[in-house]
Order: sequence, then structure tokens, then C-alpha cells
Amino acid sequence: MVDVETVKTTTGWAARDESGILSPYTYPLRNTGPDDVYLKIICCGICHSDLHQVKNELGMSNYPMVPGHEVVGEVAEVGSNVTKFKVGDVVGVGCIVGCCRNCRPCNTDNEQYCNKKIWSYNDKYTDGNPTQGGFAAAMVADQKFVVKIPDGLVPEQAAPLLCAGVTVYSPLNHFGLKQSGLRGGILGLGGVGHMGVKMAKAFGHHVTVISSSDKKRVEALEHLGADEYLVSSDTEGMQRAADSLDYIIDTVPVFHPLEPYLSLLKLDGKLILTGVINTPLQFVSPLLMIGRKAITGSFIGSMKETQEMLEFCKEKDLTSTIEVVKLDYINKAFERLEKNDVRYRFVVDVAGSKIDDK
Amino acid sequence: MVDVETVKTTTGWAARDESGILSPYTYPLRNTGPDDVYLKIICCGICHSDLHQVKNELGMSNYPMVPGHEVVGEVAEVGSNVTKFKVGDVVGVGCIVGCCRNCRPCNTDNEQYCNKKIWSYNDKYTDGNPTQGGFAAAMVADQKFVVKIPDGLVPEQAAPLLCAGVTVYSPLNHFGLKQSGLRGGILGLGGVGHMGVKMAKAFGHHVTVISSSDKKRVEALEHLGADEYLVSSDTEGMQRAADSLDYIIDTVPVFHPLEPYLSLLKLDGKLILTGVINTPLQFVSPLLMIGRKAITGSFIGSMKETQEMLEFCKEKDLTSTIEVVKLDYINKAFERLEKNDVRYRFVVDVAGSKIDDK
Repeated sequence: MVDVETVKTTTGWAARDESGILSPYTYPLRNTGPDDVYLKIICCGICHSDLHQVKNELGMSNYPMVPGHEVVGEVAEVGSNVTKFKVGDVVGVGCIVGCCRNCRPCNTDNEQYCNKKIWSYNDKYTDGNPTQGGFAAAMVADQKFVVKIPDGLVPEQAAPLLCAGVTVYSPLNHFGLKQSGLRGGILGLGGVGHMGVKMAKAFGHHVTVISSSDKKRVEALEHLGADEYLVSSDTEGMQRAADSLDYIIDTVPVFHPLEPYLSLLKLDGKLILTGVINTPLQFVSPLLMIGRKAITGSFIGSMKETQEMLEFCKEKDLTSTIEVVKLDYINKAFERLEKNDVRYRFVVDVAGSKIDDK
Repeated sequence: MVDVETVKTTTGWAARDESGILSPYTYPLRNTGPDDVYLKIICCGICHSDLHQVKNELGMSNYPMVPGHEVVGEVAEVGSNVTKFKVGDVVGVGCIVGCCRNCRPCNTDNEQYCNKKIWSYNDKYTDGNPTQGGFAAAMVADQKFVVKIPDGLVPEQAAPLLCAGVTVYSPLNHFGLKQSGLRGGILGLGGVGHMGVKMAKAFGHHVTVISSSDKKRVEALEHLGADEYLVSSDTEGMQRAADSLDYIIDTVPVFHPLEPYLSLLKLDGKLILTGVINTPLQFVSPLLMIGRKAITGSFIGSMKETQEMLEFCKEKDLTSTIEVVKLDYINKAFERLEKNDVRYRFVVDVAGSKIDDK
């Protein structure tokens, strides 16, 4: 029997059906277990995948659903086994809150690739209870999936790093692309792409933004600090840039031809896909063979990489470019995000929004 | 003016047109320059790409064309700068005989990826003279593109190593796949695939041959020493093998779906394409992202890798499985190769064939 007196609840904004419209929703939180951290949420970024999930565009949504996986909060309570965090610490929770802890990915600090990983929302804990995300007053998370936000990083700035930031940091780290002097390409300039430019610049890379139009040239070069801007339909420019890049981080989440970008890569260059695209992508084998190029992909990052990345951003004074909104603007923010009308990430000021929490 | 008295000639078997039929052809050889090695050819393997070239299937054939790029010969003369080789040494020449020596690939022992590489036949030297291959009595080659066949390796056995052998050795070497205990897949069991099984076994890998039919099961398991045999249409077997391989060397030279094979790879597994396929291949991005898998390609190997590979084969007593024929059988051999009617490589006994050389 549930001891009703000790059951915590919290209130978040939940989608109720495929309309994707969010409204206040109160739900139970588990009690803080020995390995748990109970946090009062300060803010939470809006990721493009939140949009897919609330509207059931991936066909696996369960309602009510409180989205949000770029969560920053203040620790309000810790379990008896928790030594890394103490009450008052500012911490983050990203895309996953559970894993099997016993497979090869889990045993090698690659738990984001565990087949039994548990998503931060729209998923179930092993006891069958639903997970709920960060557009809510509070959350309870296992300490393994909690990171420390370094002192001096503003919570709103840190939030997008927990998904968009680590999505670009992880492949640069894993594929040995952190040394300065490399030449990188960033394909697509949304939430992930803009972090790609900033992260690559922070590593001391020469960064080319590649885009389908000329629209973002000024932004890329003047605001984000990219070194070059290349329009993919500019045949001459693309030819001049052939064989020049060590890597391309491809953040485009819809079908696009790969050949033009493979041609930009040097010997041993890597095209790193970070966008889920269910339409098949194409290439011809000589484009990979002649130059030993690779098409690969990467999915968020490990908890270890997330913590490292936060320290790196602190050290390099690397910030995300955000628009801060209140919770009661969240439906409007989703609407605008759908039209790519944001530079570059919405972050919801949860603590500064009026939520009736119990 | 050419000093006619010192001009060497040799006789080989050349294709004259797109029929691809070879017949004796006498042509000049350059005099042995300071960096050159003049070799009397002992034998030469027949590669599947020879077939494409003699028939102009890649649309860039020049005639008369003496094919053959798995050349083993005995040194008959060396230039004044040549110290690595002496008269009487048994040496090999593979797919390329020239490179720019000044680009990033050339400067990093990756000259097979030089944009100005010169093919062993159906190409031109920088002076405009055509290159001609190994189905001939003699050849002159720059010492950079000559390897020593280790004592104890039979020339006929060594010939297929110079292309098919290094085609599988190079990616295993480059991608860090030489340590024992890895689990590898070999897709396709022709000239390159059979070397893949042998090479991977010699590295101490657990080797699965993956094939479209059950036809080669006995050969793969009993003659080549593979550990497992998987038929790609066997859904249940493929599912059992999911997430089990560190790499797959894909030697299939025609269109095939990639998804079933990507599913066999573990976290960070690599699908390595070695077959030129001009029909686009397809995949969906989540198959790469979830598991950080890579589709990559590899093209023959460097001269350094070729020499290393020959030493490795000597040490491990690794031999190719061949059918030795005479030069006057070469048209028949091409015909049979076209029907995959060879286990696994034809090698032409050039020295034992009657050639009127001058």
C-alpha cells in the first residue's frame, strides 16, 4: 500500500493528446530513494524532439506527457548513498534517467547506447511508473543521471548544453576531434548546429557553416564566430572547398543528399549524423573508399561526457544563445519552434513561472 | 631522340578493344632509371577489376591494354639509387606505380589516396607514356612501388596478396582491428572475401561469413576456417546475431541493402566497403546513431602496409587459395571469372608460359 502521507506530488505542463497542447498537470513523484536526488527545477530547454514527442510524430507517445530533457534544478533532498551532491547544489538532468548497468555500453561509460536505457520522459521506470520531464516544479532522479552545473554557469545557459551541447561534444570527443587546428563543417544551424559552431570554435577549429541558403550568413559569421559560410547550391564554392574538412557534424533532421558533403571531406574525414531521419539516405561506395571517409552517427553523450562538457564550457566561457520564456508561453514557444522561429533555443524559466506545486 | 639501341621492349597479352579479348602485344619499356627496378615477371593474379577494365565497363579504358596488378617478378636490373633490392630478389608490384609525393596522403604513407596516383595499367606516366600491367614478360617500376616478397612465400601464393590481400589487411590495420578476440564478419566470398576470412582468422578473430545463399557453407567453414556461416535471408539467424560484430568487411561489388548488416554490428562497429558500387546504397540515420556505427570504405593499402602484410602472411603461413593457369588460358580464365567460377583467384604462371620477349 502506498503511504499517502509521504507521497510527493508535483505539477508540470503536460500534453494530453496528439494536439500537443500542454496544460498544467499534477502527478506523484517517488520518494527520494537512497541513490536519488530530489530537485526543484529552475529551468528547462525546449528541444526539437519535444515537439515530435508531444505530437506523437514518432508514433510512441503516451499521455499525459510532461516533456523536457534539458533540466537544471537545485537539489532539495538527497538519498543516503548520495555523496556527489548536497542540498543547494545546482544540477542538471538530460535525456536519460536509467540504464541496465550491466551491458557493454553501460560497462564502458556509454550508457546512452544501452538497449534498456530509460528516457527522461515518455518512458517507464522498471517498476512501471511513467517518467516525466522538466517542464515541472520538481523531479526525482537517480544520482548516476545527475550532473553538477559548475559554479559560474548561469542555469538558463547551461540547460541547452545538457542535450544540444553534449550532442556535438560527444562525437568530437569520441572520434578524436578535440585538438586545435582541425577544420570542421557544421551542416544546419538550429539548436544543435549553433552549439556545434561554438563548441568547435572553443576547440580552436576552423569552422565552416554549410547551409542550403544564404539567409544565415551574417548570423553564422558575425554572431556565432564561424570562419566560413558555404551555400550547398554554390557549385563553385563547394568545389573550391572539396577535400578540405576533417569532419562535418550534420544536424539536418530531414532527407538530404550526402554526396556534396562527403566530397568536402579530406582523407579519413567523417560525416557525423546527429539527426534522426527515417527516410533512407544515399551514397555511392567510391565516395567513401577513395579517401577512406566514414558516415557515422552519434546520439547525445554519456553522463561522463556531459560533466566534462559542462566543465569545458565553464572554462571556455562558452554559452548557448537562448530566448528565455515563462511556462505559460510554452505552447506559443512550441509553435514558433516548429517554424524555426527561435535563435537558437527556448529555455523555460520554470522557477520564475507560477506553478501550484504541493 | 630515343636511342633505339637501348630501348627495351617486352611482350604481354593486351586487350585491343571492348571485347576484352587479350592477345600478344609487344611494346617498349623505359630504360631502368636511377630509382627503377626492372623485373622479369614470374606470375600475376587476375583481379575482378581487370575484367571491368579490359571491357571498358568503367568507361575509361585505353587500348592496347595489358592488365594485371598482382605482379610478382625477379629483379633483373636496378638503378643507381636502388639499395632495397638487388638482382635476383623476388619482388611484387601492386595496383599503383606512381603518386605526387607531396600531398597529405603521400606525406603520411597513404599514397593510395593521392589524387595523382598512377595506376599500374590503363594509366599514363607523367611523361605521357602508358602504363602496362603484369601479364607480360617484364616491367620497369619505381622502387617506391616495389615490395620484397619474403623468402619462403611461393610467388604464385604471394601474387593475390598484392591486391586482394592488402585490401583486407589495410582496413583491419587502419581501423585498429588487429587485436585477437574481435568478432568480424565477411560479406561476400570471392577473391577479396576469401582473403578476408584467412586474414581475420590469422589475427585471431571469430569470423562469420555472411552470404546470400547456403551454397558456400561447407567451403567457408571447412576449407577457409570460418567460425560461423550466416545466410542473410535467415531472419531468425540474423536476429540472433544482432549486435554481435566489431566489424564487417563488405566485399560485395553490386547493390545490396545495408540495414541487415548494420544491425549485426555492436556499439562502435564498422561496416567497411571494399567494392566499387556505382548504384547508390541506402541506410536510415538512426541505425548509425544508435550504436555510433560507421559505414566506411577502404581502397587497397599503402606500400608500407603491403610490405607489412607480406611479412605477416609469411609469419602466419597464410596462403591464398588459387588456380594457376598459363597465359594462353587467360581469355578462358576471364570468362570463368565473370561467372565466379574460380576458387578463389586465378594466378597466371607468366614465366612458365611461352612469350617471345626481346
